[in-house]
Amino acid sequence: MKKRPSTGRFAGFMPGVSLDCVVFGYRDRTLHVLLLRYPHTEAWALPGGFLPLQMTMDEAVSKILAERTGVHDIFLEQFHTFSGVDRGWRDSALSRKALENLRPLWTEEEWADLLDWFDQRFVSTAFLALVNAQVVTPQPDELSEVAQWIPVGELPPLVLDHAHMVEKALQHLRRQVNYLPIGRELLEDKFTMSELQALYEALLGKKLDRGNFQRKMMKLKILVRHEKLMTGAQHKAPYLYSIDQGAYDALLEEGIGIF
Amino acid sequence: MKKRPSTGRFAGFMPGVSLDCVVFGYRDRTLHVLLLRYPHTEAWALPGGFLPLQMTMDEAVSKILAERTGVHDIFLEQFHTFSGVDRGWRDSALSRKALENLRPLWTEEEWADLLDWFDQRFVSTAFLALVNAQVVTPQPDELSEVAQWIPVGELPPLVLDHAHMVEKALQHLRRQVNYLPIGRELLEDKFTMSELQALYEALLGKKLDRGNFQRKMMKLKILVRHEKLMTGAQHKAPYLYSIDQGAYDALLEEGIGIF
Repeated sequence: MKKRPSTGRFAGFMPGVSLDCVVFGYRDRTLHVLLLRYPHTEAWALPGGFLPLQMTMDEAVSKILAERTGVHDIFLEQFHTFSGVDRGWRDSALSRKALENLRPLWTEEEWADLLDWFDQRFVSTAFLALVNAQVVTPQPDELSEVAQWIPVGELPPLVLDHAHMVEKALQHLRRQVNYLPIGRELLEDKFTMSELQALYEALLGKKLDRGNFQRKMMKLKILVRHEKLMTGAQHKAPYLYSIDQGAYDALLEEGIGIF
Repeated sequence: MKKRPSTGRFAGFMPGVSLDCVVFGYRDRTLHVLLLRYPHTEAWALPGGFLPLQMTMDEAVSKILAERTGVHDIFLEQFHTFSGVDRGWRDSALSRKALENLRPLWTEEEWADLLDWFDQRFVSTAFLALVNAQVVTPQPDELSEVAQWIPVGELPPLVLDHAHMVEKALQHLRRQVNYLPIGRELLEDKFTMSELQALYEALLGKKLDRGNFQRKMMKLKILVRHEKLMTGAQHKAPYLYSIDQGAYDALLEEGIGIF
């Protein structure tokens, strides 16, 4: 292993430590993930970056996400640290190609620094968030060409172990759906039970039984029932619901735990 | 920040990255945590160490635990990475004192390396396990004087942010108790409902209602009821239970989730 650069453009960062963001977005009844594409390549990647010496991971990851995608003020939750022995940009043709394309943006000296830096093994701590993709519009930064919501069912080839990160984040999210209330930020103020069920189905990646779903949701006591949504025949019109904010907050605190 | 040492005794490790183990042990109806004490100090610490360049964190953490406490073959699960900006041994009088006591074990040159190494900011990934403290007997290594099970309610002052790590591990464990079956490794082959409840109360850190607890446990369908435990009057004798291994494994896979 090469000696790490302690000067140059990367002097202000922890060596060997990186951060990645898995931002899930709900839109068109489908779960998406926010990806960046590097210029002139088919190499897609999660938004990520490095850990400044003077920042915690929580601070750094919000800054990285904002800078790389233009997406601000999102609460990101740490879910796993990835530590594959060969984890690094040196490890993959796809990621090498992505790096090569950045070359025109750097001076010769910076480029040498960059190659040294990216030659390291990186341990990466990954964070996740779940947002309403209808109201969050990502913008690519100088390093990438495209920042885009991609349906989780249609992921393109990703650099490094980013596909594994998305998978692990999905597992975490699906587990969370079972012990925390979810969805307040993803729904309109009023919604039908069928819209709520569609959200849970998108998050869980499976179909749910309608009767069971309604029964379980009502049991959580976080919904308020309103008038019917008038679009067709009175007897077929679905009820509208909204979220009881106080009950939702309490359940968020306490968890849906059985004990 | 000083330049990291790239040679010497620490050359084979990732700089700035450490690992810590929160091993919970159940004994005498009480939850304990495995701690080490450094020689001639009151400085207690979680078993921990550094990440070899050629190992994943999962590999390294098992090796560290075995070497530092003599405890082998325990499955440790990653739960959080701690990244305080000043996180490091340089930060605390307690941890400095713990280091000073190691001095006789090192040559002058090694000692200089050690001081350089410990002067870094460390990002630490923490792992947890839950074991039967009755069958696991820890042994201290060369760096520590005592390796001991300490009740979680009676923790001594710990170095660095180790107290916070224990607290965060407890939170994680308590959440887990609510979505995974737990306890197979902690109970005798046959046990009473009251013994099972005592385990859950120790893990959750709170008293549970007896009737509710029994109802919820039976609903999980992982218990098999056997004959009564004959110790006193027939009508007061409690039933014995055992775990249905197949059902337990299935629930471990699927989770206790509501959806």
